[in-house]
Amino acid sequence: MSVAPASAFLRACRRFPVPYTPVWAMRQAGRYLPEYRRIRERMSLLQLCETPEAAAEVTVQPVDRLGVDAAILFADILLVVEPLGVGLDYAKGEGPVIARPLRAHDDVARLPDVDPNDALPFVFETVRLARRALAGRVPLIGFAGAPFTVASYLIEGGPSRDFLQTKRLMYTDPNTWTALMERLSALTARYLRGQISAGADAVQLFDSWAGCLSPDAYRRYVMPHSRAVFAALPPEVPAIHFGTGTAGLLEAMRDAGGQIIGLDWRVDLGDAWARLGPDVGVQGNLDPAVLLTTQAEIERGVHGILNAAAGRPGHVFNLGHGVLPETPWEHVRAMVDMVHEMSRR
Amino acid sequence: MSVAPASAFLRACRRFPVPYTPVWAMRQAGRYLPEYRRIRERMSLLQLCETPEAAAEVTVQPVDRLGVDAAILFADILLVVEPLGVGLDYAKGEGPVIARPLRAHDDVARLPDVDPNDALPFVFETVRLARRALAGRVPLIGFAGAPFTVASYLIEGGPSRDFLQTKRLMYTDPNTWTALMERLSALTARYLRGQISAGADAVQLFDSWAGCLSPDAYRRYVMPHSRAVFAALPPEVPAIHFGTGTAGLLEAMRDAGGQIIGLDWRVDLGDAWARLGPDVGVQGNLDPAVLLTTQAEIERGVHGILNAAAGRPGHVFNLGHGVLPETPWEHVRAMVDMVHEMSRR
Repeated sequence: MSVAPASAFLRACRRFPVPYTPVWAMRQAGRYLPEYRRIRERMSLLQLCETPEAAAEVTVQPVDRLGVDAAILFADILLVVEPLGVGLDYAKGEGPVIARPLRAHDDVARLPDVDPNDALPFVFETVRLARRALAGRVPLIGFAGAPFTVASYLIEGGPSRDFLQTKRLMYTDPNTWTALMERLSALTARYLRGQISAGADAVQLFDSWAGCLSPDAYRRYVMPHSRAVFAALPPEVPAIHFGTGTAGLLEAMRDAGGQIIGLDWRVDLGDAWARLGPDVGVQGNLDPAVLLTTQAEIERGVHGILNAAAGRPGHVFNLGHGVLPETPWEHVRAMVDMVHEMSRR
Repeated sequence: MSVAPASAFLRACRRFPVPYTPVWAMRQAGRYLPEYRRIRERMSLLQLCETPEAAAEVTVQPVDRLGVDAAILFADILLVVEPLGVGLDYAKGEGPVIARPLRAHDDVARLPDVDPNDALPFVFETVRLARRALAGRVPLIGFAGAPFTVASYLIEGGPSRDFLQTKRLMYTDPNTWTALMERLSALTARYLRGQISAGADAVQLFDSWAGCLSPDAYRRYVMPHSRAVFAALPPEVPAIHFGTGTAGLLEAMRDAGGQIIGLDWRVDLGDAWARLGPDVGVQGNLDPAVLLTTQAEIERGVHGILNAAAGRPGHVFNLGHGVLPETPWEHVRAMVDMVHEMSRR
């Protein structure tokens, strides 16, 4: 069972012409959807991720509800560190917590050697089940957190505003930093390859917090490790490289890898693509907050982004970051329909 | 008593050649300085701002301690809204709180008409006292929050992560938004003109949070109001236009105004200046987190930024945002000395 070669999403990832601009939404499976909330009444985030039938169901739901051109594996970017024994937990409403954050060389040296294929079988099973349920209607995107973003959680112990512990370690203890990033890049590459073997048609690497870095720091401390991840992936599987607040890092992220560079809303898509050059596509980039406003504003936003892409092959429409929990799902659906209709003209 | 015309800071603001790159640091008067902490043991932030002798002392302290090329008025960007009766308070360690946030048209219509010259005499007295104490050694920078950033506090009721209330009002109730922004831009312009009359040699407009916006939203909803502020200032007084996370907004911020565009660390200074063109200078842009690391890393950072500026007239060295409270003051001093020494070569 393979995805129809005519998939607009996969064609756009390869910068082939498409009859309409494909669109999906980061966090399209999430709290804003009633069917997702119903499942979450029964189980925690971690339980949901570890129950392949439920996770596959949640993966597929938005395809029916929204008419998007791709499904994305339901999982969390920190699942991959759970087998490392750092004490991952999801505090209610406060995001992930790492009970035993890494701060020194010994903390990193002590991490067990984990094979995600053994440690995370439920993720690969979710991929298999979701792909079966999709039945070739739309492709399935696998994903992982990029080494820097995962490292930042491991070092800070949870979400952060300034990433000071992470930067301090990175700048003052490069040996420990490199050891950690090499561990994470190898783990991430194996994890993504496992998802691809299980049936993922494309993958996205989320370097959500790389935007806190200067371009120089990114190139020195992050790029080699993200590049190692991309280099370990089969080149025929499209890879999307995403971050937020990265308007000053785009060229460096392109140099790290990915056939498609994900843009948040804080940069003009046309300007960004001109800077990135002809050898990559782009994904993005409507401000998720616009989906909290009106039809007219959503329309204006979609129109502006399609205009900026100028019909150039290689644009995947998306939000600039995940769907906000307070978003009316009808607005996401409206956005999807608008993208399809306006781009067909 | 006027500042020596040879002031490297003022010359750089006018893009004249300088013998060395001038440098100051945002939040150079702050918790990282022992003499500042001693004064704050005796009074709250608001009390300090409202006591001109103390505020002037705090303004001048870093000039002696650090050897910087400019002093900046000690004040807070929200002082200007205190007379509006919105219930401004500074919660311990949590930043400013607005007890009665603005959400609807009536909230804005109800705001009293305030003349900062009557309502904030202590600020202008601080400017006068600080200027006298500086005795022409270095120029004094006045400042204000830009209309968008001040509006975001008034609407959110305090600091925010996503600025959803602000964006919702901006996108869905443009009349109320415009009314609020026009009030704030007029107030801000009068406030800055008052500081200039009292003796400020230059001013900085802090649009600290404008970086949360898409370029399109910035140009539609923010730029006209920031432009109104700059247009109301005497052109012979250098104006610096600063924001964070603005790597995608730089051209729009330049179009709004300011002879110098302030850059945070998330953009390469050379790339940014090339985009901004020859008619403005730039200020920045070391990551404040680098001052928490080592001499070698600070040196590397300073060197990279001076190299990126390439000796082009019009560069004022600064951090990319304020000094972090946990910074050793010796590292700030070291940075200042390095900038002077390396740029003289």
